[in-house]
Amino acid sequence: MSITILTATELQSRIEAILAGAGMNAVQSAAVAGVIAAGERDACKAHGIYRIEGVLRTLKAGKVRGDAIPAIADAGTGAIIRVDGQNGFSVPAFELGLPLLAERAKALGLAAMVVNDCTHFSALWPEVEAVTDNGLAALVMCPSYATVAPWGGSKPLFGTNPFAFGWPRQQTEPYVFDFATSVAARGEIELHRRAGKPLPPGWAFDSEGEPTTSPEAALAGAMLPFGGHKGSALSTMIELLAGVMIGDLTSTGALEALGTTTLSPAHGELVIALSPERFSAGRPGDPFARAEMLFEAIEGQGARLPSQRRFAARRKAEADGIILSKAEMQQLDRLLELGLAAID
Amino acid sequence: MSITILTATELQSRIEAILAGAGMNAVQSAAVAGVIAAGERDACKAHGIYRIEGVLRTLKAGKVRGDAIPAIADAGTGAIIRVDGQNGFSVPAFELGLPLLAERAKALGLAAMVVNDCTHFSALWPEVEAVTDNGLAALVMCPSYATVAPWGGSKPLFGTNPFAFGWPRQQTEPYVFDFATSVAARGEIELHRRAGKPLPPGWAFDSEGEPTTSPEAALAGAMLPFGGHKGSALSTMIELLAGVMIGDLTSTGALEALGTTTLSPAHGELVIALSPERFSAGRPGDPFARAEMLFEAIEGQGARLPSQRRFAARRKAEADGIILSKAEMQQLDRLLELGLAAID
Repeated sequence: MSITILTATELQSRIEAILAGAGMNAVQSAAVAGVIAAGERDACKAHGIYRIEGVLRTLKAGKVRGDAIPAIADAGTGAIIRVDGQNGFSVPAFELGLPLLAERAKALGLAAMVVNDCTHFSALWPEVEAVTDNGLAALVMCPSYATVAPWGGSKPLFGTNPFAFGWPRQQTEPYVFDFATSVAARGEIELHRRAGKPLPPGWAFDSEGEPTTSPEAALAGAMLPFGGHKGSALSTMIELLAGVMIGDLTSTGALEALGTTTLSPAHGELVIALSPERFSAGRPGDPFARAEMLFEAIEGQGARLPSQRRFAARRKAEADGIILSKAEMQQLDRLLELGLAAID
Repeated sequence: MSITILTATELQSRIEAILAGAGMNAVQSAAVAGVIAAGERDACKAHGIYRIEGVLRTLKAGKVRGDAIPAIADAGTGAIIRVDGQNGFSVPAFELGLPLLAERAKALGLAAMVVNDCTHFSALWPEVEAVTDNGLAALVMCPSYATVAPWGGSKPLFGTNPFAFGWPRQQTEPYVFDFATSVAARGEIELHRRAGKPLPPGWAFDSEGEPTTSPEAALAGAMLPFGGHKGSALSTMIELLAGVMIGDLTSTGALEALGTTTLSPAHGELVIALSPERFSAGRPGDPFARAEMLFEAIEGQGARLPSQRRFAARRKAEADGIILSKAEMQQLDRLLELGLAAID
């Protein structure tokens, strides 16, 4: 089997060239390529090069602007930084606002970044880690498009609404989790469909609102929230804080605006950054050292911290490079050659 | 059956007299009596007059100061308000800081209140509602004492770590949820024990770390987090943000300091208040009106909003009064007469 080994930087450059070839400007293509290369590096294949086609498809459908230049809409003087995605992708808008967010969180103790009018296609952990790189804790959330029923209902209303958190660690990768508030990610339903396997009971309703274990029926119906009424409540909170409150689309609005679940949805995002130094000021104990004791206690009883598999893959990729199969390399070459014409 | 009907104010006065008789000062007894009366009013019996004995027991054990006068430790100029509970109960400390928190959140867009060195015995929803009464959204969380295992482990490390959220509604009670990040509240295990009923599978481990359905074994062992690894991650986040970050006890530290789960634990609390007006400024749509559309869509498919049973009980109590049984009234009389001597 023929494989190719690339550094993360090399892979990012190739992806960037594909995106630029499809008409994306430098700010969009660099940021988007960065998170896709990071997904591949972390062996998080669902957020790796597999995503390039989705980006191009959304671009070709005219649902996202590849030439958008995000702008600081309101740096204010308070604890809110507002970034206007200008209908481009969320990642470059987030990157634009991050230095201001970090500065403000350190000055005030906590601060929030609102990203409006942007298209989401990526996981939230790259943004969480970008905040923790500044020595800050991070809470990040956003709606998606309506595919999940509220607990007690059976019709799509919420998105898979991810909730992500990070805590900076001084000697190692941060503590990071990033999970869907649905019982499973939508991609998992799709994987069951492709494998011809039934879903576990309790995952989904069909379009008539009846419980189903058929992946096809689930994709046409609604998923359930994780953890019953509690997950449903968290998902509602995300619609309120990261949709309604920030003056951007809810998951229902995002689906209406897009008209399909086969493209990436546009909506907003909420990032809250908190300064452990400021929050612990004047109190006994160093918060970073105390957090390590908590992590040791978790791991000491055989439990794992989230994201550890991803970080292990990252270390391996940093040492040995990112391995792509011949088919994957051919696909990258094809996308570079054909650009948007590669998309049906 | 002989019953007594009291207004919430009358009930609060009776509880206040009991607490004052047991040696609590006015600021402690008024605030604590207020939340206990509110629990009874909302037919939330687990947080109603049943709690008085626990308060007195913790007081008698010398684990909380009934004479504490909470103080603003640091009003700062940023987005953090720090209140020193002075080893009293959390409620009066929260009430002291609330006006400053609301003012700061409105001025900056969001702000946080840290309450340090206080004893917790109450639900978080009274505090969530006090924030939403100011037209602000609220996130409230705190550790507890270590009774819950991390996902993948089997030994107590986390508390039941409640996570609560509120959104202000202009025409009706706020949207409020307040849930334990454990699979069940500890009181539910206790209810199964008293009823001689086994626990549902997946709730608990015994002290050897083996899965158990015995309530007794569970109380000596550990509960599981709700929602598997996701609930466990949320619980970890609460230990980090509302324990480690704010320079206060984790659930393990709280249990060590207290030495028992039969008294109320001391630790800190984190309250984040967010201004929908500020977050939505300059954006299309009124966030309060849009939130109502979301709530209608949830209820329109037969799902319920959280806290509705509590609010229905509240409306009934406000119209018809709070009904106490003869045994309950006798218990109140006994506690008033005997004070701390009523406690074993």
